[in-house]
Amino acid sequence: MRKIAESTVRRLSLYLRFLEEFEEQGMETVSSEALAARGGTTSAQVRKDLSFFGSFGKRGLGYSVAELVRRLREILGLGRTYRVAMIGAGKIGSALVQYRGFRQRGFEIVAIFDADAAKVGRNWNGLSVRDVKELEGELRRQMVDIAVIVTPAEAAQAVADKVVSLGVKAILNFAPIQLMVPDDVVVKTVNLALELETLSYALTNR
Amino acid sequence: MRKIAESTVRRLSLYLRFLEEFEEQGMETVSSEALAARGGTTSAQVRKDLSFFGSFGKRGLGYSVAELVRRLREILGLGRTYRVAMIGAGKIGSALVQYRGFRQRGFEIVAIFDADAAKVGRNWNGLSVRDVKELEGELRRQMVDIAVIVTPAEAAQAVADKVVSLGVKAILNFAPIQLMVPDDVVVKTVNLALELETLSYALTNR
Repeated sequence: MRKIAESTVRRLSLYLRFLEEFEEQGMETVSSEALAARGGTTSAQVRKDLSFFGSFGKRGLGYSVAELVRRLREILGLGRTYRVAMIGAGKIGSALVQYRGFRQRGFEIVAIFDADAAKVGRNWNGLSVRDVKELEGELRRQMVDIAVIVTPAEAAQAVADKVVSLGVKAILNFAPIQLMVPDDVVVKTVNLALELETLSYALTNR
Repeated sequence: MRKIAESTVRRLSLYLRFLEEFEEQGMETVSSEALAARGGTTSAQVRKDLSFFGSFGKRGLGYSVAELVRRLREILGLGRTYRVAMIGAGKIGSALVQYRGFRQRGFEIVAIFDADAAKVGRNWNGLSVRDVKELEGELRRQMVDIAVIVTPAEAAQAVADKVVSLGVKAILNFAPIQLMVPDDVVVKTVNLALELETLSYALTNR
């Protein structure tokens, strides 16, 4: 399969979400027009995005919802469970642990770490918060696919270096810094300050 | 000023963050190379991004850190305070209210609403959670620049319609749906499920 742009991957995720809604509503087929209307895009864009993966619509009949859901889940790598370690047991970490969307999509939080002795040992959704000093030993004991970093900015790079050295290939970063990682590691940064600044920019330059 | 791409706006936000670090460290000038190295980009990209706003570097001397901070804050619309209403007093809302980055950048949460009677009246960081039924009256009484929507997916569009009808022009949306708004309203959606799926996609298609 060709390498596809991140913007396309994001649209595929959205299509999957809409298709799951359609499936719940009992729809069996869907046109590219209907999918486009739901997602605020064009039917040409929908057809282009889906054409990356071979043709699976039928002219005049549209796409089979069940088939498209199955293929998109496969393409997005959602046919399996991902083991997630969370580093940082603060407010955002707490919200994430209780975020149902994680587990629904197969992302299972298997360990939580914090540097604050006052937090270590606390029970978070059935998991005991561990001392970050145990990070290395724990990641050697159990396989982790994804690290979620929710530490303060000044601690994040060292945590990233550590998990990368232990074989983690994917990081979801909430710390407000740009992490530096080797080319074979993928990092997604969620930076709320950045999101706010695209809003203030838009409000100012209208 | 020309309309600039969102990807550029995001890089400008990052440059500002780095420059503020440099300023704290007492640096007076910075080269495009140093800024590029800190941000994981190229000096050509830095010069191109900054050239949108007229030239303010000096060949061989680099940019004045203080001047660049001032200009970037101005460009990003950070010279003023933005009044923010939050709709949804759940876990993510709680994390956001306590997020220092908000206020540091001039985003002031002035009202919090929830539909759950059990939450109404609770004190959140000095603000009393209001019944969402008061949203309309409250937004008529006090000017709000930005609405942060942290409701369940099924409630989000109705909330967006309401705040837009009351004159709000910018929305930060955490509900896992694509909001439909008029062209003159800007929406930024933070969708954790999408972020996770770009990771699972990358892990699966490597």
